[in-house]
Amino acid sequence: MKPAPRLTLNENRFFDPNPSVRKIARGLYESVRHLPIVSPHGHVDPNIFVENKPFSNPTELFLIPDHYIYRMLYSQGIPLELMGIPPLDGPPSERDVRKIWKLFAENYYLFRGTPTGAWLDYEFSVVFRVKKKLTAATAHHIYDEIYEKLQLPKFRPRALFEKFKIEVLSTTDASTDTLEPHQILRSSGWKGKVIPCFRPDGVTNLKAKNWKESLQLLGERVGKEVTSYSRFIEALENRRTFFKSMGAVSTDHGVGSPHTHELTLGEAEMMFQRALKGGATDQDAVLFTAHMLMEMARMSVEDGLVMQIHPGSDRNHNRKIHEKYGTDKGCDIPMQTEFTHNLKELLNKYGNDPRLTVIVFTLDETTYARELAPLAGHYPAMKLGPAWWFHDSIEGMARYRSMVTETAGIYNTAGFNDDTRAFVSIPARHDLSRRVDSNYLAELVARHIVDLNEAEQMSVDLAYGLAKKTYKL
Amino acid sequence: MKPAPRLTLNENRFFDPNPSVRKIARGLYESVRHLPIVSPHGHVDPNIFVENKPFSNPTELFLIPDHYIYRMLYSQGIPLELMGIPPLDGPPSERDVRKIWKLFAENYYLFRGTPTGAWLDYEFSVVFRVKKKLTAATAHHIYDEIYEKLQLPKFRPRALFEKFKIEVLSTTDASTDTLEPHQILRSSGWKGKVIPCFRPDGVTNLKAKNWKESLQLLGERVGKEVTSYSRFIEALENRRTFFKSMGAVSTDHGVGSPHTHELTLGEAEMMFQRALKGGATDQDAVLFTAHMLMEMARMSVEDGLVMQIHPGSDRNHNRKIHEKYGTDKGCDIPMQTEFTHNLKELLNKYGNDPRLTVIVFTLDETTYARELAPLAGHYPAMKLGPAWWFHDSIEGMARYRSMVTETAGIYNTAGFNDDTRAFVSIPARHDLSRRVDSNYLAELVARHIVDLNEAEQMSVDLAYGLAKKTYKL
Amino acid sequence: MKPAPRLTLNENRFFDPNPSVRKIARGLYESVRHLPIVSPHGHVDPNIFVENKPFSNPTELFLIPDHYIYRMLYSQGIPLELMGIPPLDGPPSERDVRKIWKLFAENYYLFRGTPTGAWLDYEFSVVFRVKKKLTAATAHHIYDEIYEKLQLPKFRPRALFEKFKIEVLSTTDASTDTLEPHQILRSSGWKGKVIPCFRPDGVTNLKAKNWKESLQLLGERVGKEVTSYSRFIEALENRRTFFKSMGAVSTDHGVGSPHTHELTLGEAEMMFQRALKGGATDQDAVLFTAHMLMEMARMSVEDGLVMQIHPGSDRNHNRKIHEKYGTDKGCDIPMQTEFTHNLKELLNKYGNDPRLTVIVFTLDETTYARELAPLAGHYPAMKLGPAWWFHDSIEGMARYRSMVTETAGIYNTAGFNDDTRAFVSIPARHDLSRRVDSNYLAELVARHIVDLNEAEQMSVDLAYGLAKKTYKL
Repeated sequence: MKPAPRLTLNENRFFDPNPSVRKIARGLYESVRHLPIVSPHGHVDPNIFVENKPFSNPTELFLIPDHYIYRMLYSQGIPLELMGIPPLDGPPSERDVRKIWKLFAENYYLFRGTPTGAWLDYEFSVVFRVKKKLTAATAHHIYDEIYEKLQLPKFRPRALFEKFKIEVLSTTDASTDTLEPHQILRSSGWKGKVIPCFRPDGVTNLKAKNWKESLQLLGERVGKEVTSYSRFIEALENRRTFFKSMGAVSTDHGVGSPHTHELTLGEAEMMFQRALKGGATDQDAVLFTAHMLMEMARMSVEDGLVMQIHPGSDRNHNRKIHEKYGTDKGCDIPMQTEFTHNLKELLNKYGNDPRLTVIVFTLDETTYARELAPLAGHYPAMKLGPAWWFHDSIEGMARYRSMVTETAGIYNTAGFNDDTRAFVSIPARHDLSRRVDSNYLAELVARHIVDLNEAEQMSVDLAYGLAKKTYKL
Repeated sequence: MKPAPRLTLNENRFFDPNPSVRKIARGLYESVRHLPIVSPHGHVDPNIFVENKPFSNPTELFLIPDHYIYRMLYSQGIPLELMGIPPLDGPPSERDVRKIWKLFAENYYLFRGTPTGAWLDYEFSVVFRVKKKLTAATAHHIYDEIYEKLQLPKFRPRALFEKFKIEVLSTTDASTDTLEPHQILRSSGWKGKVIPCFRPDGVTNLKAKNWKESLQLLGERVGKEVTSYSRFIEALENRRTFFKSMGAVSTDHGVGSPHTHELTLGEAEMMFQRALKGGATDQDAVLFTAHMLMEMARMSVEDGLVMQIHPGSDRNHNRKIHEKYGTDKGCDIPMQTEFTHNLKELLNKYGNDPRLTVIVFTLDETTYARELAPLAGHYPAMKLGPAWWFHDSIEGMARYRSMVTETAGIYNTAGFNDDTRAFVSIPARHDLSRRVDSNYLAELVARHIVDLNEAEQMSVDLAYGLAKKTYKL
Repeated sequence: MKPAPRLTLNENRFFDPNPSVRKIARGLYESVRHLPIVSPHGHVDPNIFVENKPFSNPTELFLIPDHYIYRMLYSQGIPLELMGIPPLDGPPSERDVRKIWKLFAENYYLFRGTPTGAWLDYEFSVVFRVKKKLTAATAHHIYDEIYEKLQLPKFRPRALFEKFKIEVLSTTDASTDTLEPHQILRSSGWKGKVIPCFRPDGVTNLKAKNWKESLQLLGERVGKEVTSYSRFIEALENRRTFFKSMGAVSTDHGVGSPHTHELTLGEAEMMFQRALKGGATDQDAVLFTAHMLMEMARMSVEDGLVMQIHPGSDRNHNRKIHEKYGTDKGCDIPMQTEFTHNLKELLNKYGNDPRLTVIVFTLDETTYARELAPLAGHYPAMKLGPAWWFHDSIEGMARYRSMVTETAGIYNTAGFNDDTRAFVSIPARHDLSRRVDSNYLAELVARHIVDLNEAEQMSVDLAYGLAKKTYKL
């Protein structure tokens, strides 16, 4: 029997094979590799730091919460049942976490050439010091190895947070959230900085699931029932103030389309009342969302919270999976997205105002060079978010830099976001990003487009400075 | 006078010039270069193997049947008349095949940097052992050289089929085709495997040219006049069974848009009756096509034929050429194509069913990373077809791998298709594909994204395994 | 204090770092670097050659006329006021050109990795022999250095024209222009060839600003009031004849969409009359523009002027800037553009006619491989313009060649355009283009796709021959 292949991460991984580029890339990377991590946008559950309990086991740490992973196994015909994904109406049908881990290991080859594979290898190798590649043969041994480590104090959430050198971690929170974990953390004496981000989609989208309930909750949070559009605006302003008092620096808006359009007060009130009666039309929801982006920009001008727009995902494309398992199960599919016309009203009203920062993301790479870089390269308020989701990858980031920089420069971009639910993947994702950006800059140096001294400054900005500055951290 | 330049194919052609990448690429390529050819989708006329006669002459072998070639000459102002392309209503105006060959040779420089140029050089050099480049000066000599070879038994179609190591070759056939050549070949004792593919566009598109005549023919084939929608469905099921009995493993659907939508039985019957009376509207045709994609998926779930969807070509864009010369004359132009919404109904109904394989192709590269890789990276039934037509090229394939792999991996892709009418180009096209994929994998190895051992397995899968597996061959 | 960094342009800049590619690229570049410049499309003011006065100062030479530059500073929150951009209604608020230059220098780092940065470095280094990088510390010294040079006879416009080896320079002129500067230059005895280009957007777009006034002026120019559509057509034909007599070889059409559609004479007259009465609808303007593209193609067939279509910019996206400062202030944003359907009517009517040359440009790179290369690779009349505006850059040109060549070859492309208002940037832009194309060809050679001898011919065609041939110069 062949010995299991060793898992070793080459120190020059992801760099161009050309020796002169590689040498420059490596140098640039070494100068930013150990910089603190600024994570201004993500989805880690803050309760893990409140509780600070050991992670339960490798399967529940890596596989079950990460739709990047089980999406791929599902695409090859492996039912979610066998992966232990819990259906909405009960416990998972497969509860043997070792068996699930084995299945994952057998199919680990599917991740060859994917960023998920690169992140996992980093997590196994750097975070857990695993020395063998994950295969069917090594599955149980690696499971045990990681499991044992998880019991150690230094693998608890807060210890890892510190080990990862996270300077600040932003969560993403509903407008109705109490932010209780954030409150506890602030008064706990622990120095880790975990801040909330205000994401009001559940109430600004008139067709959101449980909209009515969310609205009622919003009323409870502000101590005043939300019976009208004007009270709704008041409640949101109130909540933003609260979020800001809890350390929030940003808001986030997940919308189908980035369409922006201001309604009259009368129109807004009418639609809101129709929605309260359960009669909101699809058209209402579209227009109201477009209007609320305008309102959110107005509030950001006033309170200084950085506005983030994340458009263009057709969420829950696969109805069967959605109905059985709920949201975020790997079946969100990007759509073509248009920005030039859609953002026009918002940018005309607020885009010249230096008090506003609006960071725009896209899942439609065709808009990088055509629409987003020209917009960000003109309007003072607009910055371009990093390569997002499916494009948060080696090739995806390379395309982003290649299509954005020549028109917008790097100084109209917002640095890196890890955008992850998988806490342990944070250092892996930042490391990959730092490597890819170092390589991008090295190519510029090797082609004599910038000189090394300039690249060194740009490198620090891309890895650390721009995120901090853009998010006002 | 300068001697004519030599035609030599460099053994490292198409590989990255970086020595370390090139060395790995070459190694990977050598391990797959001689693997048998699986050609699961193409347009070679099966009668050439039935008749097994010598090809007539170089002009009629290379130029006249290949719209990839005369398209380019036409774009530079050379009339199709001068290239011997036969108009629909009579013989070609230029019948001097040597004169046409000379014209082709004079303009051969137009193909610099194109895949057509690369394929032709391979055919001249590897298949026909031509030693000089094709120019005005060498035109007649090369004509004679090839002409003489064509008279030899080893250059007859069946001999070439064997020499090319074709394991299986799929043709593409109308639903009304008798498959007589396939029948003859099966009973001929010749071992070459030539299988049909069921392409019912001529009857599923209510606006297809000669739809009524095709429908009548369909009725004759199944021995039952097609007077209703339900009889139409029955006839198609019947024909699929027949195709399958003749070795078919797949169906193919050339549609303007990949829109999928199920009609009620009543709606379908109504449109069908309207079409029978010659009154189908454009809207009818669009909806009926969308519905027939649903029906074809349903039948594929039942009979196991792999479904292929080839959307997005505006066929016969140039009316003058179409009216005078007919279809497939180099004037089909790609259109923007949308998949996320269009495939939603089909994927929701059948995409979770492991019995279905639906291979989706595109001429719109913007959909690779945005729509197709995320869809293929989630739905078990969906696989992504290779870079198609204009994108079946060195850069086109490189963009495909770069935009698809990080989200879908390689295991949700369908291997290579040559999709050609030009039989002699088959080994050229597979060789180019194997080189480009080897180079892609070599870059992954050189950048330490996968290791060599993994790349070696992936290489065999890309060159051979995936086509065989996806098409159930 | 650190000494100011030296400004040196590496002789291998922009070439691939791989030594074998670089060596070939350098060789190809050296053979075209000193070829004369053919500039068939641009926006230089011809009066500078008529007057031939010294340029006033560095700020007014480089910064104030160039929206590529102040766009970037504006995007970082620097008001146009501080950059001395004159508002429509009066003089600029900041008139201290040295202070503006300092501000520019302080922010020069924003151009790292942009083509504007590369062009400026060329202009400073090659044209003005500046030896230090532009920074806050060197700002005043460099200002003085350039200012002194500008006083020398050899830095006057005509001398620079000759020094730059400009063989021909086309301006872009309204249909109502007297072409007086062109007339003066022709009779001046100066050998510099400066020709006009006929751009009738101001009268063919029924919604153009001051349409009525432009129409009246058009009537004055032809000595016959334009009271009807037929007189309008007559006037345009008359003006084209005049432009041609003044050396024009081309027309130019800046349109929102490349939609082409022929109206009946009755429809055209009706819309024209409605516009005369001030009642043109938006729909009228769209259809009339589509119709005028057809008419312009018809006239080009007759008079041989090369037709250029520049679609897809949403001009003056930022209303505040537009209202205060006017057009061309860095706030034009590209839009998604469609060609396959939009150009169909024009190409069907005139695209097979060898007397027509229509050069199509795009700001939407997604159309290169999908629509434009297939169209240009088929229709004899159509050629593809070079990478335009935001895409006139190192990466932009590389993407253009990679996406266009395999389908259209290089011989259906139109060579390079500098398209600039900034006269001194002309040699910088041609040099960059020659470098990028040399590098593209070197990659083809190094990958054994073309051989060196072929690349040498292609190199001369890309740098010089194609522009000259396509524009009939």
